[in-house]
Amino acid sequence: MAGRLDEFALIRRHFAPLSRGEPGARELRDDAASLAVPPGHELVVTADAIVAGVHFPDDSPPADVARRILRVNLSDVAAKGAQARAYTLTVQLPPAVDEDWIAGFAQTLGEEQARFGVSLLGGDTTGTPGPLTLSLNMFGELPENTMIRRDGARIGDDVYVSGTIGDAALGLRCLQGRLAVAAQADRDFLTGRFTAPEPRVALGPALRGVAHAAADVSDGLVADLGHICEASGVGAEIGIDRVPISPAARRAVTDDQPLHVSLLGGGDDYEIVFAAPAGARDELDRIAARTGTSVSRIGRIVERADAERPVAVLDGAGGRIEAGHGGYRHFEQGTGG
Amino acid sequence: MAGRLDEFALIRRHFAPLSRGEPGARELRDDAASLAVPPGHELVVTADAIVAGVHFPDDSPPADVARRILRVNLSDVAAKGAQARAYTLTVQLPPAVDEDWIAGFAQTLGEEQARFGVSLLGGDTTGTPGPLTLSLNMFGELPENTMIRRDGARIGDDVYVSGTIGDAALGLRCLQGRLAVAAQADRDFLTGRFTAPEPRVALGPALRGVAHAAADVSDGLVADLGHICEASGVGAEIGIDRVPISPAARRAVTDDQPLHVSLLGGGDDYEIVFAAPAGARDELDRIAARTGTSVSRIGRIVERADAERPVAVLDGAGGRIEAGHGGYRHFEQGTGG
Repeated sequence: MAGRLDEFALIRRHFAPLSRGEPGARELRDDAASLAVPPGHELVVTADAIVAGVHFPDDSPPADVARRILRVNLSDVAAKGAQARAYTLTVQLPPAVDEDWIAGFAQTLGEEQARFGVSLLGGDTTGTPGPLTLSLNMFGELPENTMIRRDGARIGDDVYVSGTIGDAALGLRCLQGRLAVAAQADRDFLTGRFTAPEPRVALGPALRGVAHAAADVSDGLVADLGHICEASGVGAEIGIDRVPISPAARRAVTDDQPLHVSLLGGGDDYEIVFAAPAGARDELDRIAARTGTSVSRIGRIVERADAERPVAVLDGAGGRIEAGHGGYRHFEQGTGG
Repeated sequence: MAGRLDEFALIRRHFAPLSRGEPGARELRDDAASLAVPPGHELVVTADAIVAGVHFPDDSPPADVARRILRVNLSDVAAKGAQARAYTLTVQLPPAVDEDWIAGFAQTLGEEQARFGVSLLGGDTTGTPGPLTLSLNMFGELPENTMIRRDGARIGDDVYVSGTIGDAALGLRCLQGRLAVAAQADRDFLTGRFTAPEPRVALGPALRGVAHAAADVSDGLVADLGHICEASGVGAEIGIDRVPISPAARRAVTDDQPLHVSLLGGGDDYEIVFAAPAGARDELDRIAARTGTSVSRIGRIVERADAERPVAVLDGAGGRIEAGHGGYRHFEQGTGG
């Protein structure tokens, strides 16, 4: 056992303090946690796992890993209209991970918890001969039967997306050395959108009762809107000129139209794509203002014409662009997987 | 992407049917699940991860892996007095895992779900260049504020354990080729106790309101009783002759007293060790009969004499035996980790 990190000592020192916001976590000193849900409310539960070298670069600093695993799950819960509250985390540590790494990881988790109002509820730490692997379950709360589902989009609904699309995919290309971005500020912005995505935790709950369907953009705008369409039995048309692109992304793809189109399939945006009735436009303007989140109307829900490709991407003249169909397949694409 | 298993197709084919018992899982077609808790009840949440080559042999058949990840978590929830209901599962698949493996794994999960009354609530499937890794969150229900905690043991309480202790540790030694057991029936029994532990799902909930403190025996009897003692600020004395040993285990350790003692630290028993007041002996007899679970009184809770070693193991003459202190460190011990 010499040289291995002691699980119990690790938990006590670094992870137990993260649980203090949830009395039911009992400072991680029990075999399980208890979780009471306020009357009239239910939980929203999401689970995501990330693997070093697959979902994030192998040499990512612990702060980036902590932010990423927490925020991708916060994004899922927000897109469903719920208020995130607590999470469990299991971590498999390769031998090369030392206590300094753990300390940095836990410190960032603590900062993120304070920012997003969540606490650690429980977890498990083990060794692995493989890559660093993390699995997180996020628990959110909302009034019963108000979860914004995927399957509620209706023909005639408008399609919206928050924030800007494609920054993270470009940021990842920068990190992988596959894209040169001249301006350091642009590069920092784009890579930051990959390493520290901004879950739309204010917007999501505000969309309850307004949006008919929603999903977060993790696999790519076209793919995730496609999931909404598949679940709802509808199609969608979006205008490529309406998809919000940041100034940095616009500069990065100035001379590369295929790259521009590829942003729609890039993934890792962690924005919210949603469908809402045309009558809700004014209310959505108010919600955007109140939550400080930009929201762009990018298209509409239509009858499903092509079951294989439910989302049509249209150019300025109304012609259909080939924007790819499948979900983003993560980091593997870049590493020959 | 050729040659990689498609996550969405896999989920649809093999995992979605496992979610049908939980309407809030929406057949895994949404980004998150909803989970409503009955009025007056709360959730008990536990998270455990297992890694091939660390927690189970690399070449374990999929049925063994499925049983193991589900049952170790069912055991945690049962030991807290809760009725297990649903679980989330994240799986990292190495390239060598093919769809046949997944199909076998999902089939056993389905059989286990039917047996234990739980359903899949959600999850995530990714690839990994490392070993097969699984992380499971189990959700149980119980009336509010009735969770059987670790920290409620009181001086004068009796100490009990369910079932028999040490079988799984001997079974693992057999699987590793480190222990020869002559009789095939004994070998099958012992290895079965490792690969298919029997979570005490009937006993656990029956102990609510009776047991002062409980834990499941995953790290080893002495270690897990030690956790109860540490949390409760007490000590414990147990008699080695009172610790229930199966006939197969007794035969396996006949001539090896150190091996006999080592069973107390062996771990992976997934029995329940608990403390209950002396006045509850008759009721515990009735609970044991009603739940069809053997329960043995093995010692008592005492004042804490030695903070480092809160559990004293006594021989027939009342002398203290050196039974080791630390928790079982899993499979790593056997592979030189």
